[in-house]
Amino acid sequence: MTDFQALKDFFRHDEFARQNGIEIVEIAEGYARTQVRIEPRHLNAGGSVQGGVLFTLADLAFAAATNSHGTLTVTSTANITFIRGARDGIITAQARETVNHRHLPFCEVRVTDNDGNLVAIFTASGYRKEGVRAVAEREP
Amino acid sequence: MTDFQALKDFFRHDEFARQNGIEIVEIAEGYARTQVRIEPRHLNAGGSVQGGVLFTLADLAFAAATNSHGTLTVTSTANITFIRGARDGIITAQARETVNHRHLPFCEVRVTDNDGNLVAIFTASGYRKEGVRAVAEREP
Amino acid sequence: MTDFQALKDFFRHDEFARQNGIEIVEIAEGYARTQVRIEPRHLNAGGSVQGGVLFTLADLAFAAATNSHGTLTVTSTANITFIRGARDGIITAQARETVNHRHLPFCEVRVTDNDGNLVAIFTASGYRKEGVRAVAEREP
Amino acid sequence: MTDFQALKDFFRHDEFARQNGIEIVEIAEGYARTQVRIEPRHLNAGGSVQGGVLFTLADLAFAAATNSHGTLTVTSTANITFIRGARDGIITAQARETVNHRHLPFCEVRVTDNDGNLVAIFTASGYRKEGVRAVAEREP
Repeated sequence: MTDFQALKDFFRHDEFARQNGIEIVEIAEGYARTQVRIEPRHLNAGGSVQGGVLFTLADLAFAAATNSHGTLTVTSTANITFIRGARDGIITAQARETVNHRHLPFCEVRVTDNDGNLVAIFTASGYRKEGVRAVAEREP
Repeated sequence: MTDFQALKDFFRHDEFARQNGIEIVEIAEGYARTQVRIEPRHLNAGGSVQGGVLFTLADLAFAAATNSHGTLTVTSTANITFIRGARDGIITAQARETVNHRHLPFCEVRVTDNDGNLVAIFTASGYRKEGVRAVAEREP
Repeated sequence: MTDFQALKDFFRHDEFARQNGIEIVEIAEGYARTQVRIEPRHLNAGGSVQGGVLFTLADLAFAAATNSHGTLTVTSTANITFIRGARDGIITAQARETVNHRHLPFCEVRVTDNDGNLVAIFTASGYRKEGVRAVAEREP
Repeated sequence: MTDFQALKDFFRHDEFARQNGIEIVEIAEGYARTQVRIEPRHLNAGGSVQGGVLFTLADLAFAAATNSHGTLTVTSTANITFIRGARDGIITAQARETVNHRHLPFCEVRVTDNDGNLVAIFTASGYRKEGVRAVAEREP
């Protein structure tokens, strides 16, 4: 079984997520939840949360959920649909792995605001590298 | 005709792109080019450029290209396929608006590394708000 | 309120679906179910159900669900991920409109085989034409 | 080198494409062209070419282009954006394999009408099965 704490620790080395305040809250088998507290640095020129923030939040949830089985999985192709703008509060992404496939897992992620409104829907296919452990890469 | 310099100035207020070193290099009618110089802050836990960096880079190019006609356009739905990892150098995104539609424009973006290798392909549909100017929002 | 029977009757004029044995079983508010009984004419060169059959089945469910409010809605952009092959039996698509937006609704469709296995996942954004009735077009 | 004629012959066993008048015109390395002559049987309830016809046409071009190297490749995930309606004439799809990857090739397909107008844009990722020949399956 996967050590979820070790996986969370591994993802703390994601510098882009970390420096932008995007973090993993929970990992379980085929599931993950991430969040970000919106600050002025997350906004686009129109004053809304930048689409890249929402994508990064969702993709990190995808990565945590699909790597939860212990085998390294990378995002192959992702689709994001923006439903409504957000300007402040905490934004949450919840990833559920719909298809736990040996090579090509599929995962659905819902991004919601403080009030539970749907902000974006993200779906993605991963590519799973058989025989490569999810957290092995950073070992000395 | 659109004032491309004014549009570039408008997008400088994109705090998320600005603080992450992602910038617009060129805007023309239905076209835009963005770039980012990769630093340690752009990497994921595995040491590669984080997918969110590539998405943000491509989406900013999309925004600049589709707003180049002067009418406000937002991203509706986007698809990104990651082709190969990148670890350093300058990453460039070039957006070409394939369909300049009154309501639903479509744009294709190619993301390449220093050596011209394809790193990611991004396609997106926008939603164009008739009668709303692209750079109007920030005026006092 | 929409007359679901009239909407079903309208879609019977979809010649491509009809001639290929793809039919609407149920329409409700923001929901629809379609099905097809697999025959040799639905197979590809490898002997599996052709991807175009699954797409058509899912897209028809999308059309029925998103037109269920009475306003004409067309598919703008759709994404389909093929999960596992199917060779016979009845294939069913269930569409749920996640976002009932005035202009840009979003709908998720699950395609399953006889045993309830997931065969494909389809998501799509529609374009809704305000003021145009869903079933008006064929009236004399 | 692949025998393109043998590959074309193999795809003639695609019953769904064949019975709906959708055919491969040309196959080259990483490239294919398909077409369909629109008849009343290809129309939807609104009198336009059904989206499933366009998807099937594009996906067949994808299949021919990605199998042109001789290794079996199936569609993993596909995205189609409908640009403008079509009602008659010959519709053509041209597939170009942008990424000839060992496992996950990527291909872009443009669908145009008689006058060269863009009708739909299709992009897809395939899954390539190393060591399995593209045309082997039907041998006795």
